[in-house]
Amino acid sequence: MKVILIGSGNVATHIGLALKDAGVLVTQVWSKQYDHAQALATLVSADAIENLNKLDQTADFCIIAIKDDAILSMAKELTTFKGIIVHTSGAVDLTVFEGFEKYGVFYPLQTFSIAKEIDFSTVPICIEANTGVVLTCIEELAKKLSRYVVEIGSDKRKILHLAAVFACNFTNHLYAISADLLSSHGLDFNLIRPLILETAEKVQLTSPKNVQTGPAVRNDERTMKKHEELLLEQPQLINIYQILSESIKKTKK
Amino acid sequence: MKVILIGSGNVATHIGLALKDAGVLVTQVWSKQYDHAQALATLVSADAIENLNKLDQTADFCIIAIKDDAILSMAKELTTFKGIIVHTSGAVDLTVFEGFEKYGVFYPLQTFSIAKEIDFSTVPICIEANTGVVLTCIEELAKKLSRYVVEIGSDKRKILHLAAVFACNFTNHLYAISADLLSSHGLDFNLIRPLILETAEKVQLTSPKNVQTGPAVRNDERTMKKHEELLLEQPQLINIYQILSESIKKTKK
Repeated sequence: MKVILIGSGNVATHIGLALKDAGVLVTQVWSKQYDHAQALATLVSADAIENLNKLDQTADFCIIAIKDDAILSMAKELTTFKGIIVHTSGAVDLTVFEGFEKYGVFYPLQTFSIAKEIDFSTVPICIEANTGVVLTCIEELAKKLSRYVVEIGSDKRKILHLAAVFACNFTNHLYAISADLLSSHGLDFNLIRPLILETAEKVQLTSPKNVQTGPAVRNDERTMKKHEELLLEQPQLINIYQILSESIKKTKK
Repeated sequence: MKVILIGSGNVATHIGLALKDAGVLVTQVWSKQYDHAQALATLVSADAIENLNKLDQTADFCIIAIKDDAILSMAKELTTFKGIIVHTSGAVDLTVFEGFEKYGVFYPLQTFSIAKEIDFSTVPICIEANTGVVLTCIEELAKKLSRYVVEIGSDKRKILHLAAVFACNFTNHLYAISADLLSSHGLDFNLIRPLILETAEKVQLTSPKNVQTGPAVRNDERTMKKHEELLLEQPQLINIYQILSESIKKTKK
Protein backbone atom coordinates (compact mmCIF):
# COMPACT_ATOMS: atom_id res chain seq x y z
CA MET A 1 0.00 0.00 0.00
CA LYS A 2 1.43 3.33 -1.06
CA VAL A 3 0.19 6.67 0.21
CA ILE A 4 0.80 10.25 -0.91
CA LEU A 5 0.32 13.02 1.63
CA ILE A 6 -0.81 16.48 0.55
CA GLY A 7 -0.20 18.90 3.40
CA SER A 8 2.35 19.21 6.19
CA GLY A 9 0.40 20.60 9.13
CA ASN A 10 -0.76 18.96 12.37
CA VAL A 11 -3.13 16.49 10.75
CA ALA A 12 -0.81 15.53 7.88
CA THR A 13 2.07 15.06 10.29
CA HIS A 14 0.19 12.85 12.73
CA ILE A 15 -1.36 10.75 9.95
CA GLY A 16 2.03 10.42 8.29
CA LEU A 17 3.65 9.26 11.52
CA ALA A 18 0.80 6.84 12.25
CA LEU A 19 1.05 5.40 8.74
CA LYS A 20 4.76 4.92 9.11
CA ASP A 21 4.27 3.25 12.50
CA ALA A 22 1.69 0.95 10.95
CA GLY A 23 4.13 -0.06 8.23
CA VAL A 24 2.29 1.73 5.45
CA LEU A 25 4.59 3.26 2.87
CA VAL A 26 4.30 7.02 2.54
CA THR A 27 5.97 7.66 -0.77
CA GLN A 28 5.52 11.38 -1.33
CA VAL A 29 4.73 14.55 0.57
CA TRP A 30 3.64 17.77 -1.07
CA SER A 31 3.08 21.05 0.70
CA LYS A 32 2.51 24.65 -0.37
CA GLN A 33 5.80 25.36 1.33
CA TYR A 34 8.43 23.03 -0.03
CA ASP A 35 10.62 23.17 3.07
CA HIS A 36 7.67 21.99 5.16
CA ALA A 37 7.14 19.11 2.73
CA GLN A 38 10.80 18.26 3.11
CA ALA A 39 10.61 18.28 6.91
CA LEU A 40 7.62 15.95 7.01
CA ALA A 41 9.02 13.75 4.22
CA THR A 42 12.14 13.24 6.32
CA LEU A 43 10.03 12.24 9.33
CA VAL A 44 8.05 9.64 7.41
CA SER A 45 10.84 8.49 5.05
CA ALA A 46 9.11 9.81 1.93
CA ASP A 47 10.13 12.05 -0.96
CA ALA A 48 9.15 15.68 -0.87
CA ILE A 49 7.78 16.90 -4.18
CA GLU A 50 7.69 20.47 -5.26
CA ASN A 51 5.53 20.06 -8.33
CA LEU A 52 2.26 18.16 -8.40
CA ASN A 53 3.15 16.94 -11.91
CA LYS A 54 5.59 14.61 -10.19
CA LEU A 55 2.79 12.81 -8.34
CA ASP A 56 3.35 9.05 -8.14
CA GLN A 57 0.44 7.81 -10.26
CA THR A 58 0.90 4.27 -8.96
CA ALA A 59 0.05 5.22 -5.35
CA ASP A 60 -3.05 3.64 -3.81
CA PHE A 61 -4.11 6.66 -1.81
CA CYS A 62 -3.73 10.40 -1.95
CA ILE A 63 -4.61 11.94 1.43
CA ILE A 64 -5.37 15.65 1.34
CA ALA A 65 -4.82 17.15 4.78
CA ILE A 66 -4.99 20.88 4.18
CA LYS A 67 -7.25 23.81 5.09
CA ASP A 68 -10.93 23.17 4.35
CA ASP A 69 -11.32 25.97 1.86
CA ALA A 70 -8.29 24.86 -0.15
CA ILE A 71 -9.51 21.30 -0.73
CA LEU A 72 -11.67 22.00 -3.78
CA SER A 73 -8.96 23.82 -5.70
CA MET A 74 -6.42 21.17 -4.72
CA ALA A 75 -8.75 18.46 -6.02
CA LYS A 76 -8.87 20.24 -9.37
CA GLU A 77 -5.10 19.96 -9.62
CA LEU A 78 -5.14 16.24 -8.93
CA THR A 79 -7.67 15.06 -11.51
CA THR A 80 -5.14 12.81 -13.21
CA PHE A 81 -4.68 10.75 -10.05
CA LYS A 82 -6.07 7.25 -10.52
CA GLY A 83 -5.86 5.92 -6.94
CA ILE A 84 -8.28 6.72 -4.12
CA ILE A 85 -8.35 10.38 -3.19
CA VAL A 86 -9.54 11.37 0.27
CA HIS A 87 -9.62 14.45 2.44
CA THR A 88 -9.39 14.60 6.24
CA SER A 89 -11.89 17.36 6.93
CA GLY A 90 -14.87 17.19 9.24
CA ALA A 91 -16.72 19.94 7.45
CA VAL A 92 -16.16 19.38 3.72
CA ASP A 93 -18.67 17.36 1.72
CA LEU A 94 -17.74 14.17 -0.08
CA THR A 95 -19.00 15.76 -3.30
CA VAL A 96 -15.93 18.01 -3.41
CA PHE A 97 -14.35 15.10 -5.33
CA GLU A 98 -17.10 14.67 -7.92
CA GLY A 99 -15.56 13.75 -11.25
CA PHE A 100 -12.96 11.45 -9.68
CA GLU A 101 -13.35 7.73 -10.11
CA LYS A 102 -12.50 6.67 -6.54
CA TYR A 103 -12.83 9.02 -3.64
CA GLY A 104 -13.78 9.36 -0.04
CA VAL A 105 -13.25 10.92 3.36
CA PHE A 106 -10.79 9.93 6.05
CA TYR A 107 -11.61 12.13 9.05
CA PRO A 108 -9.63 11.49 12.24
CA LEU A 109 -11.70 13.00 15.01
CA GLN A 110 -9.04 14.35 17.30
CA THR A 111 -7.16 17.55 18.05
CA PHE A 112 -3.59 17.33 16.88
CA SER A 113 -0.58 19.41 17.84
CA ILE A 114 2.81 19.04 16.28
CA ALA A 115 4.42 19.10 19.69
CA LYS A 116 2.33 16.37 21.33
CA GLU A 117 2.44 12.69 20.48
CA ILE A 118 -0.83 10.87 20.20
CA ASP A 119 -1.86 7.25 20.41
CA PHE A 120 -3.54 7.01 17.02
CA SER A 121 -5.09 3.64 17.86
CA THR A 122 -7.62 5.46 20.07
CA VAL A 123 -8.52 8.12 17.50
CA PRO A 124 -11.95 7.59 15.91
CA ILE A 125 -11.61 7.66 12.12
CA CYS A 126 -14.79 8.55 10.29
CA ILE A 127 -14.82 7.28 6.73
CA GLU A 128 -17.02 7.71 3.70
CA ALA A 129 -16.63 6.79 0.03
CA ASN A 130 -18.29 7.04 -3.36
CA THR A 131 -18.64 3.26 -3.75
CA GLY A 132 -18.72 0.21 -1.51
CA VAL A 133 -15.47 -1.09 -2.96
CA VAL A 134 -13.67 2.17 -2.28
CA LEU A 135 -15.14 2.24 1.23
CA THR A 136 -13.67 -1.19 1.92
CA CYS A 137 -10.23 0.01 0.79
CA ILE A 138 -10.41 3.12 2.96
CA GLU A 139 -11.62 1.04 5.88
CA GLU A 140 -8.67 -1.30 5.46
CA LEU A 141 -6.26 1.62 5.58
CA ALA A 142 -8.02 3.24 8.56
CA LYS A 143 -8.02 0.01 10.55
CA LYS A 144 -4.26 -0.16 10.26
CA LEU A 145 -4.13 3.05 12.29
CA SER A 146 -7.09 2.94 14.65
CA ARG A 147 -9.27 0.52 16.60
CA TYR A 148 -12.26 2.80 16.09
CA VAL A 149 -13.25 3.16 12.43
CA VAL A 150 -16.81 4.11 11.60
CA GLU A 151 -18.65 4.95 8.38
CA ILE A 152 -20.34 8.32 8.63
CA GLY A 153 -21.99 10.22 5.79
CA SER A 154 -21.23 13.85 5.00
CA ASP A 155 -24.32 15.26 6.73
CA LYS A 156 -23.71 13.45 9.98
CA ARG A 157 -20.00 14.20 9.78
CA LYS A 158 -20.83 17.90 9.77
CA ILE A 159 -22.80 17.46 12.99
CA LEU A 160 -19.88 15.59 14.44
CA HIS A 161 -17.56 18.41 13.50
CA LEU A 162 -19.91 20.95 15.07
CA ALA A 163 -20.12 18.85 18.24
CA ALA A 164 -16.32 18.75 18.28
CA VAL A 165 -16.19 22.55 18.14
CA PHE A 166 -18.29 22.70 21.32
CA ALA A 167 -16.42 19.89 23.09
CA CYS A 168 -12.90 20.89 22.08
CA ASN A 169 -12.47 24.38 20.62
CA PHE A 170 -14.93 26.16 22.90
CA THR A 171 -13.80 24.13 25.88
CA ASN A 172 -10.21 25.12 25.28
CA HIS A 173 -11.30 28.74 25.12
CA LEU A 174 -12.95 28.38 28.53
CA TYR A 175 -9.63 27.05 29.79
CA ALA A 176 -7.99 30.16 28.34
CA ILE A 177 -10.49 32.45 30.05
CA SER A 178 -9.83 30.62 33.28
CA ALA A 179 -6.07 30.96 32.83
CA ASP A 180 -6.43 34.70 32.15
CA LEU A 181 -8.56 35.23 35.24
CA LEU A 182 -5.96 33.48 37.33
CA SER A 183 -2.92 35.21 35.91
CA SER A 184 -4.52 38.65 36.19
CA HIS A 185 -4.76 37.97 39.95
CA GLY A 186 -1.32 36.45 40.30
CA LEU A 187 -2.67 32.91 40.65
CA ASP A 188 -1.07 29.82 39.14
CA PHE A 189 -2.91 27.95 36.35
CA ASN A 190 -1.53 24.75 37.92
CA LEU A 191 -4.20 25.17 40.57
CA ILE A 192 -6.84 24.49 37.92
CA ARG A 193 -5.11 21.86 35.79
CA PRO A 194 -6.10 18.83 37.89
CA LEU A 195 -9.70 20.04 37.81
CA ILE A 196 -9.62 20.33 34.02
CA LEU A 197 -8.32 16.79 33.66
CA GLU A 198 -10.80 15.32 36.13
CA THR A 199 -13.70 17.09 34.42
CA ALA A 200 -12.73 15.43 31.14
CA GLU A 201 -12.07 12.06 32.75
CA LYS A 202 -15.42 12.05 34.47
CA VAL A 203 -17.37 12.03 31.23
CA GLN A 204 -15.37 9.15 29.79
CA LEU A 205 -17.68 6.76 31.60
CA THR A 206 -20.83 8.74 32.16
CA SER A 207 -23.05 11.30 30.46
CA PRO A 208 -22.02 14.94 31.08
CA LYS A 209 -25.54 15.81 32.22
CA ASN A 210 -25.23 13.36 35.10
CA VAL A 211 -22.14 15.06 36.50
CA GLN A 212 -23.01 18.73 36.02
CA THR A 213 -21.93 20.67 39.09
CA GLY A 214 -21.59 24.35 39.97
CA PRO A 215 -23.80 27.26 41.00
CA ALA A 216 -26.02 27.27 37.89
CA VAL A 217 -27.27 23.69 38.20
CA ARG A 218 -27.85 24.28 41.93
CA ASN A 219 -29.66 27.51 41.11
CA ASP A 220 -27.38 29.25 43.59
CA GLU A 221 -28.30 32.82 42.63
CA ARG A 222 -26.21 34.39 45.35
CA THR A 223 -22.95 32.85 44.14
CA MET A 224 -23.77 33.64 40.52
CA LYS A 225 -24.41 37.26 41.45
CA LYS A 226 -21.08 37.42 43.29
CA HIS A 227 -19.32 35.96 40.27
CA GLU A 228 -20.87 38.55 37.99
CA GLU A 229 -19.66 41.27 40.34
CA LEU A 230 -16.12 39.92 40.07
CA LEU A 231 -16.41 40.23 36.28
CA LEU A 232 -17.82 43.76 36.29
CA GLU A 233 -14.94 45.15 34.28
CA GLN A 234 -15.16 42.40 31.67
CA PRO A 235 -18.64 42.66 30.13
CA GLN A 236 -17.77 40.01 27.54
CA LEU A 237 -17.07 37.50 30.29
CA ILE A 238 -20.28 38.42 32.12
CA ASN A 239 -22.08 37.73 28.87
CA ILE A 240 -20.50 34.27 28.53
CA TYR A 241 -21.09 33.59 32.22
CA GLN A 242 -24.78 34.46 32.00
CA ILE A 243 -25.53 32.66 28.76
CA LEU A 244 -23.86 29.42 29.84
CA SER A 245 -25.46 29.60 33.29
CA GLU A 246 -28.90 30.11 31.74
CA SER A 247 -28.29 27.21 29.40
CA ILE A 248 -27.27 24.97 32.30
CA LYS A 249 -30.38 25.93 34.26
CA LYS A 250 -32.59 25.00 31.30
CA THR A 251 -31.06 21.55 30.92
CA LYS A 252 -31.41 20.80 34.61
CA LYS A 253 -32.72 17.30 35.14
CA MET B 1 -5.41 14.29 65.35
CA LYS B 2 -9.18 14.01 65.53
CA VAL B 3 -11.53 15.43 62.94
CA ILE B 4 -15.29 15.97 62.89
CA LEU B 5 -17.04 16.11 59.53
CA ILE B 6 -20.15 18.23 59.05
CA GLY B 7 -21.84 17.17 55.82
CA SER B 8 -22.18 13.93 53.85
CA GLY B 9 -22.12 15.01 50.21
CA ASN B 10 -19.44 14.63 47.53
CA VAL B 11 -16.87 16.86 49.22
CA ALA B 12 -17.41 15.52 52.74
CA THR B 13 -17.23 11.94 51.47
CA HIS B 14 -14.00 12.40 49.52
CA ILE B 15 -12.34 14.35 52.33
CA GLY B 16 -13.47 11.72 54.83
CA LEU B 17 -12.05 8.90 52.74
CA ALA B 18 -8.81 10.77 52.15
CA LEU B 19 -8.43 11.47 55.88
CA LYS B 20 -9.01 7.82 56.67
CA ASP B 21 -6.46 6.77 54.03
CA ALA B 22 -3.98 9.22 55.55
CA GLY B 23 -4.47 7.69 58.98
CA VAL B 24 -6.27 10.70 60.43
CA LEU B 25 -9.03 9.77 62.84
CA VAL B 26 -12.49 10.94 61.78
CA THR B 27 -14.42 10.66 65.01
CA GLN B 28 -17.86 12.02 64.13
CA VAL B 29 -20.04 12.75 61.12
CA TRP B 30 -23.08 14.95 61.26
CA SER B 31 -25.48 15.51 58.38
CA LYS B 32 -28.90 17.14 57.99
CA GLN B 33 -30.08 13.67 57.08
CA TYR B 34 -29.08 11.25 59.78
CA ASP B 35 -29.08 8.21 57.50
CA HIS B 36 -26.56 9.97 55.24
CA ALA B 37 -24.38 10.70 58.26
CA GLN B 38 -24.60 7.04 59.18
CA ALA B 39 -23.59 5.93 55.69
CA LEU B 40 -20.54 8.17 55.61
CA ALA B 41 -19.65 7.38 59.23
CA THR B 42 -19.57 3.70 58.32
CA LEU B 43 -17.27 4.42 55.38
CA VAL B 44 -14.78 6.35 57.48
CA SER B 45 -15.14 4.35 60.72
CA ALA B 46 -16.64 7.26 62.66
CA ASP B 47 -19.74 7.79 64.77
CA ALA B 48 -22.76 9.39 63.21
CA ILE B 49 -24.31 12.04 65.44
CA GLU B 50 -27.88 13.23 65.19
CA ASN B 51 -27.62 16.15 67.55
CA LEU B 52 -24.91 18.80 67.39
CA ASN B 53 -24.96 18.93 71.20
CA LYS B 54 -23.11 15.64 71.05
CA LEU B 55 -20.15 17.21 69.25
CA ASP B 56 -16.81 15.88 70.49
CA GLN B 57 -15.35 18.99 72.09
CA THR B 58 -11.90 17.41 72.21
CA ALA B 59 -11.60 17.15 68.41
CA ASP B 60 -8.81 19.15 66.74
CA PHE B 61 -10.76 20.06 63.61
CA CYS B 62 -14.34 20.51 62.59
CA ILE B 63 -14.63 20.49 58.79
CA ILE B 64 -17.84 21.97 57.43
CA ALA B 65 -18.50 20.59 53.94
CA ILE B 66 -22.04 21.70 53.20
CA LYS B 67 -23.82 24.05 50.78
CA ASP B 68 -22.34 27.55 50.69
CA ASP B 69 -25.43 29.33 51.89
CA ALA B 70 -25.82 27.01 54.89
CA ILE B 71 -22.33 27.61 56.29
CA LEU B 72 -23.12 30.78 58.24
CA SER B 73 -26.10 29.32 60.08
CA MET B 74 -24.16 26.11 60.74
CA ALA B 75 -21.29 28.14 62.22
CA LYS B 76 -23.75 29.77 64.62
CA GLU B 77 -24.69 26.33 65.92
CA LEU B 78 -21.08 25.39 66.54
CA THR B 79 -19.91 28.35 68.62
CA THR B 80 -19.03 26.14 71.59
CA PHE B 81 -16.44 24.22 69.53
CA LYS B 82 -12.96 24.93 70.79
CA GLY B 83 -10.87 23.26 68.05
CA ILE B 84 -10.18 24.67 64.61
CA ILE B 85 -13.29 25.17 62.51
CA VAL B 86 -12.93 25.29 58.72
CA HIS B 87 -15.20 25.25 55.70
CA THR B 88 -14.42 23.76 52.28
CA SER B 89 -16.03 26.36 50.06
CA GLY B 90 -14.40 28.28 47.25
CA ALA B 91 -16.85 31.15 47.47
CA VAL B 92 -17.44 31.81 51.18
CA ASP B 93 -15.33 34.37 53.00
CA LEU B 94 -13.14 33.49 55.96
CA THR B 95 -15.07 36.07 58.00
CA VAL B 96 -18.07 33.75 58.14
CA PHE B 97 -16.37 32.37 61.27
CA GLU B 98 -15.79 35.68 63.04
CA GLY B 99 -16.25 35.23 66.77
CA PHE B 100 -14.52 31.83 66.80
CA GLU B 101 -11.11 31.58 68.34
CA LYS B 102 -9.47 29.37 65.71
CA TYR B 103 -10.82 29.16 62.20
CA GLY B 104 -9.91 28.87 58.57
CA VAL B 105 -10.62 27.54 55.11
CA PHE B 106 -9.76 24.14 53.68
CA TYR B 107 -10.78 24.33 50.01
CA PRO B 108 -9.95 21.29 47.87
CA LEU B 109 -10.00 22.55 44.28
CA GLN B 110 -11.45 19.59 42.46
CA THR B 111 -14.77 18.27 41.19
CA PHE B 112 -15.91 15.34 43.27
CA SER B 113 -18.48 12.67 42.48
CA ILE B 114 -19.57 10.01 44.92
CA ALA B 115 -19.21 7.39 42.21
CA LYS B 116 -15.68 8.20 41.12
CA GLU B 117 -12.54 7.65 43.13
CA ILE B 118 -9.95 10.38 43.15
CA ASP B 119 -6.27 10.54 43.93
CA PHE B 120 -6.42 13.18 46.64
CA SER B 121 -2.66 13.63 46.61
CA THR B 122 -3.00 15.55 43.32
CA VAL B 123 -5.84 17.80 44.52
CA PRO B 124 -4.74 21.37 45.24
CA ILE B 125 -5.88 22.38 48.73
CA CYS B 126 -6.22 26.12 49.26
CA ILE B 127 -5.95 27.09 52.90
CA GLU B 128 -6.47 30.22 54.92
CA ALA B 129 -6.67 30.94 58.64
CA ASN B 130 -7.27 33.67 61.19
CA THR B 131 -3.79 33.35 62.72
CA GLY B 132 -0.40 32.05 61.71
CA VAL B 133 -0.54 29.30 64.30
CA VAL B 134 -3.90 28.07 63.06
CA LEU B 135 -2.63 28.23 59.49
CA THR B 136 0.26 25.96 60.41
CA CYS B 137 -2.15 23.43 61.93
CA ILE B 138 -4.42 23.48 58.85
CA GLU B 139 -1.39 23.17 56.61
CA GLU B 140 -0.21 20.14 58.55
CA LEU B 141 -3.60 18.47 58.08
CA ALA B 142 -3.80 19.39 54.39
CA LYS B 143 -0.31 18.06 53.69
CA LYS B 144 -1.36 14.69 54.98
CA LEU B 145 -3.84 14.53 52.09
CA SER B 146 -2.23 16.41 49.22
CA ARG B 147 1.12 17.25 47.72
CA TYR B 148 -0.21 20.64 46.63
CA VAL B 149 -1.16 22.86 49.54
CA VAL B 150 -1.19 26.61 49.06
CA GLU B 151 -2.23 29.56 51.19
CA ILE B 152 -4.77 31.71 49.38
CA GLY B 153 -6.75 34.58 50.88
CA SER B 154 -10.51 34.89 50.58
CA ASP B 155 -10.46 37.41 47.73
CA LYS B 156 -8.14 35.35 45.55
CA ARG B 157 -9.99 32.17 46.46
CA LYS B 158 -13.15 33.69 45.01
CA ILE B 159 -11.34 34.33 41.73
CA LEU B 160 -10.11 30.77 41.80
CA HIS B 161 -13.64 29.53 42.31
CA LEU B 162 -14.87 31.66 39.43
CA ALA B 163 -12.07 30.36 37.21
CA ALA B 164 -13.09 26.84 38.20
CA VAL B 165 -16.66 27.53 37.09
CA PHE B 166 -15.34 28.41 33.63
CA ALA B 167 -12.87 25.52 33.44
CA CYS B 168 -15.10 22.83 34.93
CA ASN B 169 -18.81 23.63 35.19
CA PHE B 170 -19.12 25.47 31.88
CA THR B 171 -16.82 23.02 30.16
CA ASN B 172 -18.95 20.12 31.31
CA HIS B 173 -21.98 21.90 29.95
CA LEU B 174 -20.31 22.20 26.56
CA TYR B 175 -19.72 18.45 26.71
CA ALA B 176 -23.45 18.06 27.40
CA ILE B 177 -24.37 20.24 24.43
CA SER B 178 -22.04 18.17 22.29
CA ALA B 179 -23.60 14.93 23.56
CA ASP B 180 -27.10 16.25 22.82
CA LEU B 181 -26.14 17.28 19.29
CA LEU B 182 -24.76 13.82 18.65
CA SER B 183 -27.64 11.86 20.14
CA SER B 184 -30.24 13.92 18.31
CA HIS B 185 -28.56 12.76 15.08
CA GLY B 186 -28.10 9.16 16.14
CA LEU B 187 -24.36 9.58 16.70
CA ASP B 188 -22.39 7.99 19.52
CA PHE B 189 -20.85 10.23 22.20
CA ASN B 190 -17.92 7.80 22.23
CA LEU B 191 -16.81 9.45 19.00
CA ILE B 192 -16.10 12.63 20.96
CA ARG B 193 -14.77 11.21 24.22
CA PRO B 194 -11.13 10.80 23.09
CA LEU B 195 -11.20 14.40 21.83
CA ILE B 196 -12.48 15.66 25.18
CA LEU B 197 -9.71 13.87 27.03
CA GLU B 198 -6.98 15.02 24.66
CA THR B 199 -8.19 18.63 24.86
CA ALA B 200 -7.79 18.51 28.64
CA GLU B 201 -4.48 16.66 28.49
CA LYS B 202 -3.04 19.16 26.05
CA VAL B 203 -3.27 22.06 28.50
CA GLN B 204 -1.58 20.12 31.29
CA LEU B 205 1.76 21.16 29.86
CA THR B 206 1.02 24.26 27.87
CA SER B 207 -1.09 27.40 27.96
CA PRO B 208 -4.59 26.97 26.46
CA LYS B 209 -4.06 30.00 24.21
CA ASN B 210 -1.15 28.24 22.52
CA VAL B 211 -3.27 25.28 21.46
CA GLN B 212 -6.50 26.96 20.44
CA THR B 213 -7.81 25.33 17.27
CA GLY B 214 -11.07 25.48 15.32
CA PRO B 215 -12.81 27.75 12.83
CA ALA B 216 -12.97 30.85 15.07
CA VAL B 217 -9.24 31.16 15.70
CA ARG B 218 -8.63 30.55 11.97
CA ASN B 219 -11.27 33.14 11.17
CA ASP B 220 -12.88 30.56 8.90
CA GLU B 221 -16.15 32.46 8.32
CA ARG B 222 -17.50 29.93 5.85
CA THR B 223 -17.38 27.02 8.31
CA MET B 224 -18.80 29.17 11.10
CA LYS B 225 -21.70 30.17 8.86
CA LYS B 226 -22.37 26.52 8.02
CA HIS B 227 -22.33 25.63 11.70
CA GLU B 228 -24.82 28.34 12.50
CA GLU B 229 -27.08 26.98 9.74
CA LEU B 230 -26.96 23.55 11.37
CA LEU B 231 -28.14 25.15 14.60
CA LEU B 232 -30.96 27.17 13.04
CA GLU B 233 -33.63 25.49 15.14
CA GLN B 234 -31.71 26.00 18.37
CA PRO B 235 -31.31 29.76 18.80
CA GLN B 236 -29.82 29.30 22.26
CA LEU B 237 -27.00 27.23 20.81
CA ILE B 238 -26.41 29.74 18.01
CA ASN B 239 -26.09 32.36 20.71
CA ILE B 240 -23.48 30.31 22.59
CA TYR B 241 -21.71 29.49 19.34
CA GLN B 242 -21.48 33.13 18.30
CA ILE B 243 -20.45 34.54 21.65
CA LEU B 244 -17.69 32.00 22.19
CA SER B 245 -16.48 32.34 18.59
CA GLU B 246 -16.34 36.12 18.93
CA SER B 247 -14.45 35.78 22.19
CA ILE B 248 -11.94 33.40 20.59
CA LYS B 249 -11.40 35.80 17.68
CA LYS B 250 -10.65 38.63 20.12
CA THR B 251 -8.04 36.67 22.01
CA LYS B 252 -6.27 35.62 18.85
CA LYS B 253 -2.53 35.91 19.19
